[in-house]
Amino acid sequence: MIKNLLKKDGVSSKIVLIVLDGLGGLPIKDGMTELEIAKTPNLDKIVSFSATGCHIPVDFGITPGSGPGHLALFGYDPTKFQIGRGILEALGLGLEVGPYDITARGNYATIDKDGKVVDRRAGRIKTEENIEITQKLSQAIKNLPISIKSGKEHRLGLVFHFNKPVESTLKDTDPQSEGLFPKEPEGNDDASKLIREFLSIVKKVLKDQEKANYILLRGFARMPEIESFNSKFNLKSCAIAVYPMYKGIAKLVGMEVLNSNGESFKDQINTLKSAWGDYDFFFLHYKKTDSAGEDGNYELKISAIEEFDSYLPEIMSLNPNVIAITGDHSTPSIMKSHSWHPVPVLIYSKFTLGKTSQRLTERECLKGELGIFPTYKLINYLLAHSLRLEKFGA
Amino acid sequence: MIKNLLKKDGVSSKIVLIVLDGLGGLPIKDGMTELEIAKTPNLDKIVSFSATGCHIPVDFGITPGSGPGHLALFGYDPTKFQIGRGILEALGLGLEVGPYDITARGNYATIDKDGKVVDRRAGRIKTEENIEITQKLSQAIKNLPISIKSGKEHRLGLVFHFNKPVESTLKDTDPQSEGLFPKEPEGNDDASKLIREFLSIVKKVLKDQEKANYILLRGFARMPEIESFNSKFNLKSCAIAVYPMYKGIAKLVGMEVLNSNGESFKDQINTLKSAWGDYDFFFLHYKKTDSAGEDGNYELKISAIEEFDSYLPEIMSLNPNVIAITGDHSTPSIMKSHSWHPVPVLIYSKFTLGKTSQRLTERECLKGELGIFPTYKLINYLLAHSLRLEKFGA
Repeated sequence: MIKNLLKKDGVSSKIVLIVLDGLGGLPIKDGMTELEIAKTPNLDKIVSFSATGCHIPVDFGITPGSGPGHLALFGYDPTKFQIGRGILEALGLGLEVGPYDITARGNYATIDKDGKVVDRRAGRIKTEENIEITQKLSQAIKNLPISIKSGKEHRLGLVFHFNKPVESTLKDTDPQSEGLFPKEPEGNDDASKLIREFLSIVKKVLKDQEKANYILLRGFARMPEIESFNSKFNLKSCAIAVYPMYKGIAKLVGMEVLNSNGESFKDQINTLKSAWGDYDFFFLHYKKTDSAGEDGNYELKISAIEEFDSYLPEIMSLNPNVIAITGDHSTPSIMKSHSWHPVPVLIYSKFTLGKTSQRLTERECLKGELGIFPTYKLINYLLAHSLRLEKFGA
Repeated sequence: MIKNLLKKDGVSSKIVLIVLDGLGGLPIKDGMTELEIAKTPNLDKIVSFSATGCHIPVDFGITPGSGPGHLALFGYDPTKFQIGRGILEALGLGLEVGPYDITARGNYATIDKDGKVVDRRAGRIKTEENIEITQKLSQAIKNLPISIKSGKEHRLGLVFHFNKPVESTLKDTDPQSEGLFPKEPEGNDDASKLIREFLSIVKKVLKDQEKANYILLRGFARMPEIESFNSKFNLKSCAIAVYPMYKGIAKLVGMEVLNSNGESFKDQINTLKSAWGDYDFFFLHYKKTDSAGEDGNYELKISAIEEFDSYLPEIMSLNPNVIAITGDHSTPSIMKSHSWHPVPVLIYSKFTLGKTSQRLTERECLKGELGIFPTYKLINYLLAHSLRLEKFGA
């Protein structure tokens, strides 16, 4: 419906979507959450003029991964756009994926002399060892249309490049249990042939490795057919993120990914400033809140929130028409993981009711004018508050 | 979606779903509801540590029957699983229903000497008279594959047993108006034949009854095809209820129905305790709240709530991982009937935000972290809070 309501032109309003990754939490001390404990004078100032609420990324009680969480924030119903693991791994590691390419997630594994899998994760080798082996392997396959890149420990991302549409009957080669042979692709299609060739080189190059002497492949996936964010919402968007995963998801929906001169949030804000004239939608990703929550380090999560708060005036000084501040999912420190809890959100603009919540916290946002709503509808509010939507019906 | 996210094994958490039938109400005195007036010290204690909210069993403004209300609580969208009246009547009265059987609801009725219906409800004969007549009739049909059982007043439940799939073109025999002939089945299929035979025996056996000299049949229905609760949610469930209706609905979704040594709530709690080691999902049904509301007896409803509250510590002492306390629909005493009002709910677990509501009441629960949500999504929350779900997407 939104598509038909988008104003065609003449709108120059600017929207900033700030994602504090894993923002929501649960009580950790004296019954208070990380957001409640954190001192956030700058956020507190704008809350009275903001619409607040909570959003649910996937469904009631469902814990979202970062992929679905961000897709929802970008206005895509994540239950309708399930993104293969291979593609997220590849994009996440910064590999380029073309429209006909096939991606996969790889595990370095140990096989015995007969070829049976002895350890599906090659004893979880160290990342440094992975990088070294992957370089050697890259060298050996440099004439093949294949890109590979190390992930953490035994993991790697792979892209099999094709310059035209190819059939694919590929299934995971990982047999899922030790003591079995890998299930190698048997098809006569180009994709199966290329992967067989790749695997035979892998076997030769890695044969003397003690642990990582083979690769198991999982989650074969192509670039999904997904309408670009810019076309869907008539916006010129960019993404300012540091971690490859979030750059990857932004790329997936066709946002322009901007590189910063460094990895600090200060660097990201400098990028925001210098790109201010060139776009009208800015996705600004702040990672520290999630990492701290995942580590169960609530003090770090609190200080990450406070650090973000200290940068808020710089963002405000750009005078955006609409700022949304929220998370892609909750990551309560006490759970050390993502969770299903609704994520607090604040929308600052000239056209809010306001004065419903005292602060941007889980409990205060429950009182807000936005209520509890599906995350993928947030974009409606951003477009509305930036006056980019026509009236529905006469 | 839930199905793909269920953890396969290794989860031993225990969930107790306590249904205080017809829980929600409306102001009855000094602007306060039954829940607001009731003194519930034990409920009050756990509310601070609970997630609260309100749920809507069928749709906004729709008053649910007990069947849809419970189906929704069990995680089935009640608009997609409409259960025939015959099956609820039969299961509700405790009749056994096989996979090929056909059930019906019967009314004792009065017909004149030509066979025309004079009174569709046989003057609402007393239940005792019904029982007596039904016994006589049971005796007369003992060689036929038919089970019948008395309901209240003029009602009865019937099951026509078949040991293989049979066609059925059966329609209600009740002509819906007095002065008309009953519409007897005319088909040549086995079901129609059996029912014609049954009705001719009825006519003979009851011919001397003053009022109940015939039976009208309505709501022919087979056992619905419904995936069992245990398979749908990977749980081992049991139901602890006293009234046949609720046992029936629990049976319908494949829960194991446990019998208590008596009909008091104390007896039900003893059953809960002795079954504690054998299941991981316990549906505990408390009827008194609804009966009192239906009678418009708000004092009795208040004392029923208070009586339940006095048993709560015994349930808590079992240390369940998740307790949900709610109703299947509201039954305001001032309406003397079920109503469409959202039903307050509380979920007690380690992973709640809490401190949003002061008490389990209609008004306080509106402030809670669960918001207002469809009843059939409650199961998502119960599974989430008991850590039985994987993350959605990477």
